[in-house]
Amino acid sequence: MASTKSPVVDIHTHVYPPSYIELLKSRSSIPYIRSFPPSPALRLVILPAEDTESTSRGRPVGPEYYDINKKIDFMDTHSIDISVISLANPWLDWVPAAEAARAAENLNNEVNEECGKFPGRLFAFGTLPLSGGKEVIVKEITRLKELKYMRGVILGTTGLGKGLDDPELIPIFQALQDTKLPIFLHPHYGLPGSVWGDRASDYGHVLPLALGFPLETTIAVTRMILSGVFERIPELQMILAHSGGTLPFLAGRIESCIEHDTHLKAEGKLEKGRKTVWDILKKNIYLDAVIYGEIGLRAAIQASGEDRVMFGTDHPFFPPLDEGEKWLSVETIYEAIKGALGSGSEDAKGALGGNAVKILHLAV
Amino acid sequence: MASTKSPVVDIHTHVYPPSYIELLKSRSSIPYIRSFPPSPALRLVILPAEDTESTSRGRPVGPEYYDINKKIDFMDTHSIDISVISLANPWLDWVPAAEAARAAENLNNEVNEECGKFPGRLFAFGTLPLSGGKEVIVKEITRLKELKYMRGVILGTTGLGKGLDDPELIPIFQALQDTKLPIFLHPHYGLPGSVWGDRASDYGHVLPLALGFPLETTIAVTRMILSGVFERIPELQMILAHSGGTLPFLAGRIESCIEHDTHLKAEGKLEKGRKTVWDILKKNIYLDAVIYGEIGLRAAIQASGEDRVMFGTDHPFFPPLDEGEKWLSVETIYEAIKGALGSGSEDAKGALGGNAVKILHLAV
Repeated sequence: MASTKSPVVDIHTHVYPPSYIELLKSRSSIPYIRSFPPSPALRLVILPAEDTESTSRGRPVGPEYYDINKKIDFMDTHSIDISVISLANPWLDWVPAAEAARAAENLNNEVNEECGKFPGRLFAFGTLPLSGGKEVIVKEITRLKELKYMRGVILGTTGLGKGLDDPELIPIFQALQDTKLPIFLHPHYGLPGSVWGDRASDYGHVLPLALGFPLETTIAVTRMILSGVFERIPELQMILAHSGGTLPFLAGRIESCIEHDTHLKAEGKLEKGRKTVWDILKKNIYLDAVIYGEIGLRAAIQASGEDRVMFGTDHPFFPPLDEGEKWLSVETIYEAIKGALGSGSEDAKGALGGNAVKILHLAV
Repeated sequence: MASTKSPVVDIHTHVYPPSYIELLKSRSSIPYIRSFPPSPALRLVILPAEDTESTSRGRPVGPEYYDINKKIDFMDTHSIDISVISLANPWLDWVPAAEAARAAENLNNEVNEECGKFPGRLFAFGTLPLSGGKEVIVKEITRLKELKYMRGVILGTTGLGKGLDDPELIPIFQALQDTKLPIFLHPHYGLPGSVWGDRASDYGHVLPLALGFPLETTIAVTRMILSGVFERIPELQMILAHSGGTLPFLAGRIESCIEHDTHLKAEGKLEKGRKTVWDILKKNIYLDAVIYGEIGLRAAIQASGEDRVMFGTDHPFFPPLDEGEKWLSVETIYEAIKGALGSGSEDAKGALGGNAVKILHLAV
C-alpha cells in the first residue's frame, strides 16, 4: 500500500516491549520500574537526578508504553499508516556484558514478532548489545539484517562508554554500512545538572528535556564529524532525532570554527578533501521532523534536503494536554510540515511518509 | 549619514581598551595577559582549561584587540560604516567587589571617549560592575545612559554568580528597562569540559567555541524566560549574540515541553497570560546575524522578525585564513544576508544596518 497511497509514516515512536518492562521491574537501581505506594501505578526511573525521595520519581508507565495494540490505536487516531518503532532509552546500555547478547537477541526478536502481528503497518529499529563487546555487537547487526521488519538500529550517544568519536566503534559503523542499516541517533543522558542552575527544579523537566536532549545529540554527532567517521565510513547513514538537535542551525558556525582552528590546520586536517558539515548533512544524515515548529523544520529541510526529512511523533512521550484530546505534539508537527512545505504538496507527502518508505524500504 | 545612506552597522564587535589590557597584564591568575618567552607576543588566557603548560595557552592579543584605529581600518576594509563596540569577555565579572565601581566607570568612560574620536562611526555597549552589588550596578546603568555614545550593556550569563534567572537581578533588569538600555547577551563560560569527551583536544577549540558558546546563551535566556523575567520586566530588551545561540531553532521544542510539564501546570504557571517563547522572540528579543549561514539566518529572521536582526562580525575573533585576505567570517555573514533577504532589498538593508540605527538610535 505504501508507495501508491501517500502513506503517513512515523519514524520516531517508542515502545518498551513486555520483556523489557519485566527486566526493569526486576531491578532496584536505575534504570528500574516499580510502584510507589499508596499508588499502584508503575513508574519508570531512568536518570540519577530523578531517583530521589524529594521529587516525583521518574514518570508513569502505562500500557501505551508496552501494549502494541495501543500503538495501533494511536496510529489510527492520528492517521498514521506505518510506524517504525524503537525501544525508548536507556536501551541496553546498562546490561552486564555477559547478558548483553542474549538480551538484545530476545528483545529484537520480540519487537520483530510484534511488527509481524500488523504486517505492513509496523517496522522497527533494533537495539544493539553495546556492553557485549565488538564481536557480539557486529554479530547482532548481521542478525538484525535478516529479521523481516528491522530497518536500522537505535543508538544513544555513549557508544561503548566513550562517546561516538571512539575509534573502537569503527568496526561497528563499518558493519552498519555493509548491511545498509541506518543509525537512529537518540539522546538520553542530557547535560551535567550544573548547567541548569539552582532554580532548575522550579521549571519541572523543561530544561533537561527541551535543551539537554537536543544539545546532547548535537555534541555527539559533531564529535563524530570531527573525528573523521564520515570520511572513514563514507556511506554510513544517520537519522538524527529531534531534527538533528541543533545541527541545522549551528552547521555554519561549526564550519567557521573548523576553518579557523589553528590546531586542526597544524595537524593537516583541513585539506581540501574534507567533508564539510554541509556535505555530511546532505549525504549521510537524515532528520526526523520532531521539532515542533515551522521555523525549525524549514531549517532542517534546507540543511538536509526535502527528500531527507521524515515525520515522527515521539509517542508515547508528550501525552495530550487534556483528556480526550489529540496529541498536541503530533498536531504541531503536522502543522509545521504543512506550513513549511505546503498542504498536499509532493514535498509534504514526502516528509509525511514518502521519504521514509524510500529510505527505509518499507514496502512489504 | 546613517538613515539616508543605508549604512552598514556592526553590532557585534569587540575591544579590549588599553586600560583593560594593563589591568590584565598586572595579574598572574586567569584572566591574565602575558608573553611566554622566547616569544615576545602577548597572549590572553581566560579559561581554566587553557591555563596549562601542555597546550598553547590562550590566544594571541595583537593591536586589533586594543588599538581603536585598527577597528576603523577593519571597518573601512569591509565597508562597515558604524560599529557598536563592546568589551570582550570576561568583562569585569572577576573584579574584586571593592574595585568594581571604579573599574566600570574608568572603562566605560574610556570606551565612550574612544567613540568620540570618530563621531558617528563608533557607539558602544557599556560594561556593568557585576561584582559590586546591586546599588553600584544600578548607579552605573544610570550613569551609562548619560554617556554620549553608550547604547546598551554587554552581559555574560552568570549575572551575580547564580545565572540570569536569579531574582536578585530584577532591580537591575528594571533599571535597564527604565533607561531603555538593551542587554547584549554574550557567552563566555561554555559548558563543563566533560561533555566534549576524551578526544576534545584533538579537535582544537572547535567544540567549546562552536557548540559551548551558543548552548550557553540558549540555556541562559531560556532560564530567564522560565523564571518569568519577561512578565515582570515586560519591556526588557535583549540582543542575543550568535543569533540567539540555538533559540530560534529550539523555540518550538521549549514551548512543547513547557505546555506538557506537569510541575509547571501544578504550580499554575501555564495560565493563559503567559508569554510564550515565540512572543518573547518577537517582543523582547533582537538577534545579531552572526550565524555564518543562510539557513540559520533565515530561522533567526523568521523567529524574531526581519526588523529585529542586525549584522555583526565578532571582530577581532576569527581572523582571515590567509595573510592579506578579507575576514571569512564577515564575508560569510554578508553572503548569508544577501541569500536570505535578497541582495539590495529593503529587508537586507535593514539587517545590514537600518534596523540597528533604529533600535539603537545611532544617529548623532
